[in-house]
Amino acid sequence: MKLHRKTLEVKSSSGTDIVDLTREVLAAVKESGVKDGQILVFVPGSTGSVTTIEYESGVIQDLKEAIERLLPEGITYLHDKKWGDGNGYSHVRAALMKPSLTIPLVEGRPLLGTWQQVVLLDFDNRPRNRRVFLQVMGV
Amino acid sequence: MKLHRKTLEVKSSSGTDIVDLTREVLAAVKESGVKDGQILVFVPGSTGSVTTIEYESGVIQDLKEAIERLLPEGITYLHDKKWGDGNGYSHVRAALMKPSLTIPLVEGRPLLGTWQQVVLLDFDNRPRNRRVFLQVMGV
Amino acid sequence: MKLHRKTLEVKSSSGTDIVDLTREVLAAVKESGVKDGQILVFVPGSTGSVTTIEYESGVIQDLKEAIERLLPEGITYLHDKKWGDGNGYSHVRAALMKPSLTIPLVEGRPLLGTWQQVVLLDFDNRPRNRRVFLQVMGV
Repeated sequence: MKLHRKTLEVKSSSGTDIVDLTREVLAAVKESGVKDGQILVFVPGSTGSVTTIEYESGVIQDLKEAIERLLPEGITYLHDKKWGDGNGYSHVRAALMKPSLTIPLVEGRPLLGTWQQVVLLDFDNRPRNRRVFLQVMGV
Repeated sequence: MKLHRKTLEVKSSSGTDIVDLTREVLAAVKESGVKDGQILVFVPGSTGSVTTIEYESGVIQDLKEAIERLLPEGITYLHDKKWGDGNGYSHVRAALMKPSLTIPLVEGRPLLGTWQQVVLLDFDNRPRNRRVFLQVMGV
Repeated sequence: MKLHRKTLEVKSSSGTDIVDLTREVLAAVKESGVKDGQILVFVPGSTGSVTTIEYESGVIQDLKEAIERLLPEGITYLHDKKWGDGNGYSHVRAALMKPSLTIPLVEGRPLLGTWQQVVLLDFDNRPRNRRVFLQVMGV
């Protein structure tokens, strides 16, 4: 059983930036030499999440608008009254969408559909230098 | 450490079909011989998700209606303007609910509650032959 | 490869109780002796979930209010008509937020941000004695 880890440095912009990490995920799996197992993608911090989506500008915008409808930026959050960071909505979005995702590996590749990319969602209200952690486990 | 994998073929209907996979999950764990570890359930593609719920017709319908309220089919999605598949809402639903779920195994069984079943959510707008991937890992 | 498991007993109150489990998660990782790997946090049953959030009273309340807006308690659920438990909304909330979370371990510690705690969300409409399962896997 091998364990291989890699930390990505991702520059993200404010306003629910959605960043395609698929190339980096594929590279980490290749470097690991793992053929059969899984990759865990995890973003530390409480204003980011990870999921999969077709990385196509239309549906990326659809997802941003859906999140804004569900968890609007412009309403009152108690977090902002206390801390004044103005990113209460970012915290709530990240808590609902969670910071981790696990993808199985088969024959040395993540088992993603053709139109399925791995993305970081950065919900914060300012540009960030994000760290995204990749852990490959398997044989 | 053992790794055992199995691909399920699932016929799903359109309109947020919710399919009980518990029997297949239990079978895969049994076949694997793993007593202590975990099972990863993953649906490749960008219009499906996996979660747990009590598989009871009332609450299954409640979940469908909640998803329709949160992420309605009938509003405008940019994805549909570009690609014309009419399933922009399916992509957004799947991105929010994610394609994977990990369940721990204890004494050779998934640690599910009595009223907790493993389900595929197929959000697509047409019937699909889905593949669902099961990976059992442990000792 | 080590596998270490621990079951927490958590007393939760009704009304989307959000309970900080970080101390217990840290303790389980330390007990396991695992330096490099991951911890799976899983709540059996169909009315609870696990996520991460900054455990600060303002944003905890913001999250509760967001969940109530998205999936209100006071509307009609078919589950309640059939079973009369009055917790149809709890089931739908838990299905959407899922029962599991995986966190990577680096140098013997979960890779959490400073303002990122691991929490149980108990959506049930009555106080519960919850079991939360922790599984540490790695080397």
